[in-house]
Amino acid sequence: MRRNEFNETNMDEIKAVLSECEHGTLSLISEGEPYGVAVNFVFFEDKICFHGAQKGRKVEAIKANSHASFLVVKPYSLIPSYFSDARLACPATQFFASVHLYGDVMIVEDVNKKAKILEAMMQKLQSEGGYDEIWSKNPIYTKMLEKVGVYTLTPTTISMKIRVGQNFSEEKRQSLADQLRERNNTADDKTAYIIESYINS
Amino acid sequence: MRRNEFNETNMDEIKAVLSECEHGTLSLISEGEPYGVAVNFVFFEDKICFHGAQKGRKVEAIKANSHASFLVVKPYSLIPSYFSDARLACPATQFFASVHLYGDVMIVEDVNKKAKILEAMMQKLQSEGGYDEIWSKNPIYTKMLEKVGVYTLTPTTISMKIRVGQNFSEEKRQSLADQLRERNNTADDKTAYIIESYINS
Repeated sequence: MRRNEFNETNMDEIKAVLSECEHGTLSLISEGEPYGVAVNFVFFEDKICFHGAQKGRKVEAIKANSHASFLVVKPYSLIPSYFSDARLACPATQFFASVHLYGDVMIVEDVNKKAKILEAMMQKLQSEGGYDEIWSKNPIYTKMLEKVGVYTLTPTTISMKIRVGQNFSEEKRQSLADQLRERNNTADDKTAYIIESYINS
Repeated sequence: MRRNEFNETNMDEIKAVLSECEHGTLSLISEGEPYGVAVNFVFFEDKICFHGAQKGRKVEAIKANSHASFLVVKPYSLIPSYFSDARLACPATQFFASVHLYGDVMIVEDVNKKAKILEAMMQKLQSEGGYDEIWSKNPIYTKMLEKVGVYTLTPTTISMKIRVGQNFSEEKRQSLADQLRERNNTADDKTAYIIESYINS
């Protein structure tokens, strides 16, 4: 069987996916059971950083066992089977990129660090600005910085998979990209662009 | 602190989110560690159903411990802080709906059941058709149905959270919806519609 997903090891590509995606799923072990929870995040100073309440199941799980898996998915287009075959359903797939990290989740206590992380999250998710910079000396943030829970996951491993038809011939990949462009929408145009960038790389 | 996420218990709403979302994250325990993996899925006959290889880390983890958490996230708009406050960053958030399921993952061996599940997945993800129906008597699918791994997660619990500003006054919610519509794009229009549907429900 030919592989249809490929590992991407270029850290710039990995960071690009992490900065494009608004949320990821944190998988923890909670009372012996797997537990997945979605969080908005920023990849800042080589850590996955997120915030939330200081109480609740997620925090209890982290305190009991800090080991975590973090998965970020950037879905591209659904590729219909008929782009490749008139009868078989098998070629139907979804193209995507995903980044997988493992590591330990730490609770950030220092308000200066909390402020820096939250400011980095704002710069990612509200890059147009429109708020007072978050820092610990600004009194409008004092209470918030005490109350909010801020967490970092320091990755011991980080890997990326990308499926954009790399197992197909160049001709077939170009045909997929052309058929996607004919659908005439932004998401499919973007997938076509990614397919072509991997043909040319 | 006022809650900003609300539980939705209407099974029709839950099924609507499951049918709108193409993938979810399966959280497993693999060799004692949390392990999250994304899969395309269909909610069929009250089970989360997905397919994949018959070998690999996901399958080994399932065979060793079938307990799983499955999380499906429908992201809505990022809500900038300046929709609510000119200085504070704190109101910045992302609206979303998410469905959380727990249960045991079973490996489907019967080729008739495999065919039914894969056909249901095609009807979800390629609803426009354009392929021969998947069933076990069609010889073009015989080999594929033997080789593919098909998995079901039977939920013991299923819950949905939705954050669309329900903790705000009706006036503020309408103001958010109006400001989203001014951005003039399909995704924000959809979020505005959801906000209003929860005002009126």
